[in-house]
Amino acid sequence: MTVKQLTLPELTEACVRLGIPGVGLWRDPVRSYGVEAAAKVVRDAGLTVTTLCRGGFFTTATDLDDNRAAIDEAATLGTDTLVLVSGGLPPGGKDLPAARARITGAIAELAPYAAERGVRLAIEPLHPMYAADRCAVSTLDQALAIAAHFPASQVGVVVDTYHIWWDDRAPAAVARAGEQGRIHSFQLADWTTPLPAGVLNGRGQLGDGTIDLRAWRERVDAAGYTGPIEVELFNDDLWARDGVQVLEETAHRYIRHAL
Amino acid sequence: MTVKQLTLPELTEACVRLGIPGVGLWRDPVRSYGVEAAAKVVRDAGLTVTTLCRGGFFTTATDLDDNRAAIDEAATLGTDTLVLVSGGLPPGGKDLPAARARITGAIAELAPYAAERGVRLAIEPLHPMYAADRCAVSTLDQALAIAAHFPASQVGVVVDTYHIWWDDRAPAAVARAGEQGRIHSFQLADWTTPLPAGVLNGRGQLGDGTIDLRAWRERVDAAGYTGPIEVELFNDDLWARDGVQVLEETAHRYIRHAL
Repeated sequence: MTVKQLTLPELTEACVRLGIPGVGLWRDPVRSYGVEAAAKVVRDAGLTVTTLCRGGFFTTATDLDDNRAAIDEAATLGTDTLVLVSGGLPPGGKDLPAARARITGAIAELAPYAAERGVRLAIEPLHPMYAADRCAVSTLDQALAIAAHFPASQVGVVVDTYHIWWDDRAPAAVARAGEQGRIHSFQLADWTTPLPAGVLNGRGQLGDGTIDLRAWRERVDAAGYTGPIEVELFNDDLWARDGVQVLEETAHRYIRHAL
Repeated sequence: MTVKQLTLPELTEACVRLGIPGVGLWRDPVRSYGVEAAAKVVRDAGLTVTTLCRGGFFTTATDLDDNRAAIDEAATLGTDTLVLVSGGLPPGGKDLPAARARITGAIAELAPYAAERGVRLAIEPLHPMYAADRCAVSTLDQALAIAAHFPASQVGVVVDTYHIWWDDRAPAAVARAGEQGRIHSFQLADWTTPLPAGVLNGRGQLGDGTIDLRAWRERVDAAGYTGPIEVELFNDDLWARDGVQVLEETAHRYIRHAL
């Protein structure tokens, strides 16, 4: 999504050239390209699909068919991790605990289906500014509390610096998540202000913002995480630029600010 | 600030007519009007000044003179409470714990000065979306941890629904703050989306958003708070309308959604 201006072949070619060993994919472009075809492009390039984004939106979904389809797509792509953006409040709703209970119930239905297909569900806590309309799970503690109902091999969490950097309890939660084997994905983005209208597409390029990315990478390392590290930037300015150049810049920024 | 389009005499006259017994004031309009003159207008109308907003911005302040001036102004206005918006990260900064330590240090310098003038300092946790640029104190728990260094008669917290509604730990923190006598101000605003650019002026009119305002009012009541309840809306749409009409609407919304 960081370089959504690139086609899948352009992306994989640039990754190979830059020595980036895997890519996190989003459902929409994958489905447009064809799930099987996308799997083949990535595989033929010698890359892995790190995660598929996203299932979820449980609080407004009338059924879980679309989430089962997302799990199937993850399996086809050969990734072991489906990221869940769990959903906010239903229309007119004001009850966050009820929304979180509904999220837990939906995951209970999906987890065995996913496990049968070799796919783990990774609950991503989103920044509290999204609590109403995108994700009632706002902290790593809340995500871990939901995950605790399930085996770590089935349900874990996403650690994304953009969403948790402000939280003084998050470092301890990262350590706990690591002990439990529940860090299923680690994502980097920087925090830049002012936020744009709608607050969706203002994630900062690594190093441009206020997050001590290296400190978070070291925390996640110390928690025993050895999986892929994704950089997920929703940023209108980056999307307006040449995608290969952005990818190259991002790789350099990663080395400079997080490695 | 909810009806900043009104002059101070227009505001006090409308409050008297609507049976609103007190007003929270902001420093800029008070200083433009003259602090002594503002105090007299409110007093002559038979109203109280509930709080003065705001001191703070400790993390970028070179000295505390402006905060001492704010304390003096609060004393002149006859309010016992100065609200603190503590400040975010200094330019180029990435260290939130250090910013919070600096905030604690500044409050330690100011609290005795304020106490001598009969003014309490009320730390307002701001929503985590302001952590970088406005306030490194993002939760009621953090505000209480800072306040714990001082007597409750000198330093307390502001409970503002807009900033804490998403936080599953906030209800327990409200109860604890009440037990400690540290709820120095209670403010209402609703959460509406999408957020505007800059995320400053999108606070929702009561009832327009996702916050169960009555539940929070009841929690604060149950915590033993008997002080004034303020409605603080930063909202471009409300500011563009007739101020007296907005004040009347706000009073009705309060009765309907929070009383």
